[in-house]
Amino acid sequence: MLKLYYAAGTCALASHIALEEAGAAFETVNVDFRSNAQRSPWFLAINPQGRVPALVTQHGVLTETPALLAYIAQTFAQARLAPMGDPFQFARVQAFNSYLCSTAHVAHSHRMRGYRWVDNADAIAAMQRKVPQSVGECFDLIEREMFEGPWVMGETYTICDPYLFTLAQFLEGDGVDPARFPKVRAFRERMSVRPAVMRALADELRYA
Amino acid sequence: MLKLYYAAGTCALASHIALEEAGAAFETVNVDFRSNAQRSPWFLAINPQGRVPALVTQHGVLTETPALLAYIAQTFAQARLAPMGDPFQFARVQAFNSYLCSTAHVAHSHRMRGYRWVDNADAIAAMQRKVPQSVGECFDLIEREMFEGPWVMGETYTICDPYLFTLAQFLEGDGVDPARFPKVRAFRERMSVRPAVMRALADELRYA
Repeated sequence: MLKLYYAAGTCALASHIALEEAGAAFETVNVDFRSNAQRSPWFLAINPQGRVPALVTQHGVLTETPALLAYIAQTFAQARLAPMGDPFQFARVQAFNSYLCSTAHVAHSHRMRGYRWVDNADAIAAMQRKVPQSVGECFDLIEREMFEGPWVMGETYTICDPYLFTLAQFLEGDGVDPARFPKVRAFRERMSVRPAVMRALADELRYA
Repeated sequence: MLKLYYAAGTCALASHIALEEAGAAFETVNVDFRSNAQRSPWFLAINPQGRVPALVTQHGVLTETPALLAYIAQTFAQARLAPMGDPFQFARVQAFNSYLCSTAHVAHSHRMRGYRWVDNADAIAAMQRKVPQSVGECFDLIEREMFEGPWVMGETYTICDPYLFTLAQFLEGDGVDPARFPKVRAFRERMSVRPAVMRALADELRYA
């Protein structure tokens, strides 16, 4: 059975929701970031990067949210979570998810993980001050140019949706007013009442 | 015909090489970063993010390196640049490329694009000081855990290879000694003599 290693409140939620949407048989393991479990030998043996999500499959371990999302869509094809057979449309899905992982999530990460890129406290504080602006600019672009509605790619729900929902959950903590993005805000409400989302959140809240 | 918008010396080289490897019919357009052409109205109409690469197809514009690489592999299937039919192996390819775009390239970007994440000169300088360490750690992980050899995924050349080659080209500029990574160094030499790589580099050098 698939086993998803996550930590509550992280981007692993995207893959967690996608597994629920796919109707996959899977179990979850919480990696307790508060006790720094992601740096423990047992977890580094699963993912040498010390990060979540990590998905243990019968063939081996997979990491990186965009890769997991496409894997889930391809493996559980009957759930129709990505237009795998249409190279252009699949590339649009991948481009959106790639933007989230390389730009939007990275902007957010400068609030809590600044030590990755600087060593001194003043520079970390300078990073944290700019997070509301840099994250806000990402969501401006998503709202204005990328989001089609009612789902990210338009009429069809895809693996872009759990990922955008997950990063949109960070807005308040990043000091960005969600009311600036009415389309994304309505989308978040739409997502929140999906049974798959409710199940994933309920599971993760046991550890929050 | 496909049209690739690139800028010499950027990560767009990965898609450029992949198009050459695929035997695609395409033309290139250099977006002159020195004159800030990526922020000009004509280019923002192509990619509102103001970034390269952007690939104009008959269906529309695609962005983001991992998305372009998978698109090229899927569209030119006869070149066998990705194991599209095997969800697990395809996910491994995607995970590697996702790591490059969200972590390795991001570490590099703190040298020249620090203004994305901080506003003051001291913090930008602090970022630049840490780039050799953060980029070096990424390549340590690639060398130790990810790179199989002779190509990234082992015996078969994939879309991971042009991407790793492209980011490895930044090592010297980032202040990281390539000799620390013997497997990646030998890979770079192996890549440098591939006709597709030589053609792409020759094309880009017109603008360097």
